[in-house]
Amino acid sequence: MILVIKPDATAEQIDHVIQRIEELGFKSHVSRGEQRTIIGVIGDERKPQAETLAAIPGVEQVHHILKPFKLASREFQKHDSIVKVGKIRIGGGHLAVVAGPCAVESLDGLNRIAVHVKKAGANILRGGAFKPRTSPYAYQGMGEEGLRILRDVGDKHDMPVVTEVMDPRQVALVEKWADMFQVGARNMQNFDLLKEIGQTRKPVLLKRGMSATVKDLLMSAEYVLAGGNTNVVLCERGVRSFEDSTRNMLDMSAVPNVKGQSHLPIIVDPSHATGRPDLIPSMTKAAIAAGADGVHVEVHDCPEKALSDGPQALLPDQFARLMEDVRKLAAAVGSTVD
Amino acid sequence: MILVIKPDATAEQIDHVIQRIEELGFKSHVSRGEQRTIIGVIGDERKPQAETLAAIPGVEQVHHILKPFKLASREFQKHDSIVKVGKIRIGGGHLAVVAGPCAVESLDGLNRIAVHVKKAGANILRGGAFKPRTSPYAYQGMGEEGLRILRDVGDKHDMPVVTEVMDPRQVALVEKWADMFQVGARNMQNFDLLKEIGQTRKPVLLKRGMSATVKDLLMSAEYVLAGGNTNVVLCERGVRSFEDSTRNMLDMSAVPNVKGQSHLPIIVDPSHATGRPDLIPSMTKAAIAAGADGVHVEVHDCPEKALSDGPQALLPDQFARLMEDVRKLAAAVGSTVD
Amino acid sequence: MILVIKPDATAEQIDHVIQRIEELGFKSHVSRGEQRTIIGVIGDERKPQAETLAAIPGVEQVHHILKPFKLASREFQKHDSIVKVGKIRIGGGHLAVVAGPCAVESLDGLNRIAVHVKKAGANILRGGAFKPRTSPYAYQGMGEEGLRILRDVGDKHDMPVVTEVMDPRQVALVEKWADMFQVGARNMQNFDLLKEIGQTRKPVLLKRGMSATVKDLLMSAEYVLAGGNTNVVLCERGVRSFEDSTRNMLDMSAVPNVKGQSHLPIIVDPSHATGRPDLIPSMTKAAIAAGADGVHVEVHDCPEKALSDGPQALLPDQFARLMEDVRKLAAAVGSTVD
Amino acid sequence: MILVIKPDATAEQIDHVIQRIEELGFKSHVSRGEQRTIIGVIGDERKPQAETLAAIPGVEQVHHILKPFKLASREFQKHDSIVKVGKIRIGGGHLAVVAGPCAVESLDGLNRIAVHVKKAGANILRGGAFKPRTSPYAYQGMGEEGLRILRDVGDKHDMPVVTEVMDPRQVALVEKWADMFQVGARNMQNFDLLKEIGQTRKPVLLKRGMSATVKDLLMSAEYVLAGGNTNVVLCERGVRSFEDSTRNMLDMSAVPNVKGQSHLPIIVDPSHATGRPDLIPSMTKAAIAAGADGVHVEVHDCPEKALSDGPQALLPDQFARLMEDVRKLAAAVGSTVD
Repeated sequence: MILVIKPDATAEQIDHVIQRIEELGFKSHVSRGEQRTIIGVIGDERKPQAETLAAIPGVEQVHHILKPFKLASREFQKHDSIVKVGKIRIGGGHLAVVAGPCAVESLDGLNRIAVHVKKAGANILRGGAFKPRTSPYAYQGMGEEGLRILRDVGDKHDMPVVTEVMDPRQVALVEKWADMFQVGARNMQNFDLLKEIGQTRKPVLLKRGMSATVKDLLMSAEYVLAGGNTNVVLCERGVRSFEDSTRNMLDMSAVPNVKGQSHLPIIVDPSHATGRPDLIPSMTKAAIAAGADGVHVEVHDCPEKALSDGPQALLPDQFARLMEDVRKLAAAVGSTVD
Repeated sequence: MILVIKPDATAEQIDHVIQRIEELGFKSHVSRGEQRTIIGVIGDERKPQAETLAAIPGVEQVHHILKPFKLASREFQKHDSIVKVGKIRIGGGHLAVVAGPCAVESLDGLNRIAVHVKKAGANILRGGAFKPRTSPYAYQGMGEEGLRILRDVGDKHDMPVVTEVMDPRQVALVEKWADMFQVGARNMQNFDLLKEIGQTRKPVLLKRGMSATVKDLLMSAEYVLAGGNTNVVLCERGVRSFEDSTRNMLDMSAVPNVKGQSHLPIIVDPSHATGRPDLIPSMTKAAIAAGADGVHVEVHDCPEKALSDGPQALLPDQFARLMEDVRKLAAAVGSTVD
Repeated sequence: MILVIKPDATAEQIDHVIQRIEELGFKSHVSRGEQRTIIGVIGDERKPQAETLAAIPGVEQVHHILKPFKLASREFQKHDSIVKVGKIRIGGGHLAVVAGPCAVESLDGLNRIAVHVKKAGANILRGGAFKPRTSPYAYQGMGEEGLRILRDVGDKHDMPVVTEVMDPRQVALVEKWADMFQVGARNMQNFDLLKEIGQTRKPVLLKRGMSATVKDLLMSAEYVLAGGNTNVVLCERGVRSFEDSTRNMLDMSAVPNVKGQSHLPIIVDPSHATGRPDLIPSMTKAAIAAGADGVHVEVHDCPEKALSDGPQALLPDQFARLMEDVRKLAAAVGSTVD
Repeated sequence: MILVIKPDATAEQIDHVIQRIEELGFKSHVSRGEQRTIIGVIGDERKPQAETLAAIPGVEQVHHILKPFKLASREFQKHDSIVKVGKIRIGGGHLAVVAGPCAVESLDGLNRIAVHVKKAGANILRGGAFKPRTSPYAYQGMGEEGLRILRDVGDKHDMPVVTEVMDPRQVALVEKWADMFQVGARNMQNFDLLKEIGQTRKPVLLKRGMSATVKDLLMSAEYVLAGGNTNVVLCERGVRSFEDSTRNMLDMSAVPNVKGQSHLPIIVDPSHATGRPDLIPSMTKAAIAAGADGVHVEVHDCPEKALSDGPQALLPDQFARLMEDVRKLAAAVGSTVD
């Protein structure tokens, strides 16, 4: 951490800054420039209270040097993490293709869709039982009954299953029925939920919040890792922007950006990122070319009757054609869909 | 709701659209223009499944006509709601001045600060016992012990108290000790938490999420209102933007924007919005002039030792001077600090 | 400037960094911490080529310490600049109230509006003769004929006039007819235009670009100042954001943010910032309370027939009522409308 | 266009709305719903003054049905445009690979870089002679001398050349020396510049503004097309966002988004979008996979001595390796680098 001192700070103020640095267990290193004095704060700046140095009179700016996350960082672990979900591996060249409807709506309905996506090449089945809906009047999901259906259909087709968990009180229940938790964008900073999941050893698909920076996303992963659960897969799903013709703005550069800083796998969700079936195929392909560890695509066989997010689902045929392209692109960049 | 039909849609597709509209219980009204056919969907577009109309082949665009919230709307209630927190009224010309430290740190510390803010004219005391921190290694708050301290100090100075609740499992505990819940920006769309609070009758200060539109904020209020709890006060606290010299971007226009659409009171939090003590006073004054129903200001008597957010706290003296200006401006716009 | 060195940089790399620093005429100051080596670069970091230090192998991060602007900074000039437009002063407690239609449409039309705004208390008349329109098919303005009309009407009512200039080739013409140039948001970084205006001595109202930071705005002012024209007035007019219920997001905190860093006056344009007549009055009042040096409000006596931006104009009566409030608030914060 | 009428509008107000619609040459079609009356406005809503309908008392909302651009639209021209720059075709499966330094710095320097990029497979050479720099103190480019050097080096290596034009007064000069104009992000809405270029028949590379929507970009293309110049190639180069670890946010979905609405080619500039050499290769590959008609990559053989944007340039070796991947991916998606 580096403190920049105000040009009009008094000698007493500077002495006081140095004293506080040392009280907090850091060493200080003063450098007087032509226009400003700067003080290097030597020690681990992730220590609680380091931030209070910014509040001392005479301090003009604080520059952080280290990333605020540890366990999630490439410095902590050089090699790529590979997360296993059932028999499926994610990371290190193994691509996850997570597909299924937005919401579990019925046993028959989910089964029909699972037949399609399995045949096309998806390796993880998704479906929501607890739905975070902007409106209290919208469909809220089947709850536990949905979890049972998801488990049954996953088993029938030999696909591990992932489903959203929204409330710390649901963690044990979801843990019982699913192979992977999903934490949605709206809950990326629901810290009590993250802590609860950190206490399990079940994989989690952690989606980027709508206004979260890449650093914020990695800090949320750090909450889970700090609890002892190392099975974290990140998911870029678009962020809020001024562009009003897509649901969100897909930040494709988050893929290499995360991979440079962290050993954790990251997949891309073009369905929520764009909200438009006409854009999903090319964004799926771009994600594979960008080096993502997989994709997350919503598929429904009758979008006009879907209980949630129908307008953004691909049809089974569209998904099957897309998977052919995915395999070609994966081959071109040296990754595989197991 | 209005559907715009693609120029190349077939007659069968249009018939199918009309059929689905009627299956969902709406009436349809077709209008053929020079370049597009449009279909008016007559009925309450907030009905679940109305959104699926966008997924029907042949539909190019969907335009919503009504606001998606009901109970929160000005159409539902013409006059301004006044929410009572202890003896303090918020709304209808009565200003809330919520002040205190970011976190409850000790009985003595909170008491010292309460003396100052009470004297300066604050009428509600704030202090966090459960803290949502971006880093798992940062100070996480005193928990229940903090709630007891807050209660004691509030009672001692005859000030109602507000404190953050982050987890549905904490609702009963916070309800016991505090006069008002605070739902933070990161939890604005933590729908299980909102539902739980909706089951109580205790006032809630609902902060705008960092990437929430005004409509999203009102939809979250609707969750609480739909549960039967009408004591909702909104809070503008800045949103994420590209501007990197302030912590967030304070959307001051949210004040009249909310007031035009909703009867709920709205206050402004310039502390989190700007993150900079040098900007807080003028933004507090602007909020009063804009017609806000109050302000929320962090005050600490030793920011450099604060356990959370010290760098953005005002000193007691700065706050006292600010309150003089607040009273002048309130007089100029016809509101009062009770 | 401070360079942070990569943890795995070699001694040769570090030596090379130091050598380049010295070749560019800076001194270097090395500090070895527990986790990183940092190098202070001593000298004026605004020197061209300082930025290339970031490209040297082994350099991980570059932190800037100084603001990139000089002539616009408070350090360069401690006291507030007061800019004179005709007989009107802007800054130092003197408020500009710039009002008029979006576009000059006819002599009679402008005259009618000028009568109203003058009577209500506006002290500068605005009206566009060259209009930057998103669509090539939209009304593009009256050109020179509009400038003559503006001059005539301004003289008739003894009001100085401001009008937009979009092209360096128009500078001489606009200089001839108007008392103040306006540079619109879309041209804030039209550097050739800024240089041309910098060669004149006529005041300029420089509007913030739709995605410009406060620092970017001050850098654009620096272009004009560097040319020798010190008569720069800044204007906050909203920035692009995800909020879709207002035309832009008014960044009210830009007012104190600019005033802390710069001696230049800054006014607020709530018309373009919100695009909504129902929000303009409260945002005008908030701007005065925030300490702005004035406001810029579009007024039209028949918005439904305006050739440009009619939907966001205030009616003369609305403007007159607003001016009463402006005077009350100005009194409460110690400023005046001359 | 559809007008939604306020619930409390009077019959007189509605009559007046209809009268104005007809005065403007439209037909009206009234539909009374349960909660709102809506009026369809039949005719070409791109007509000037259509927007004024929003300003009529009693009108609550205006919904646009048609895209505001014509000549740029897929409806106007179904097949993909192919733009020729010298002998190089862009569009319809033919990829542009535009490479070179940010600025032309010297004959020898540009020649050295051209040897590298030509050999690696680039087919258009870039280099700036007029540089739009945020700071007036930064390097502003070589001007005409730079244009001559660019021409010479392009001819020597049989590569067409593209260079930025910033000022309408430079159009004739740049037209003389270059094969393609570049309009930078800051000038995307410099309408006088666009009009001037529209009068030539030379191709233009039109970059998306930092806060421009896809619709805004297409409207700027419309300005050039409306002048009669149909040789427009669009360029996605990232937009401003809250993410602070990349220079801009690359909106990859703009590629299929543009292609769905417009026949114009679109290429991607990952250099300016990310500002980080570590992210450029994967974003280049993603662009090809997404269906872009080419890429724009900055290459410099000594970034640490570059006079502009050195920190974001690829080294020649990095670029050569990237081109191998580009060819593999182009093959996988059916496009070619001529």
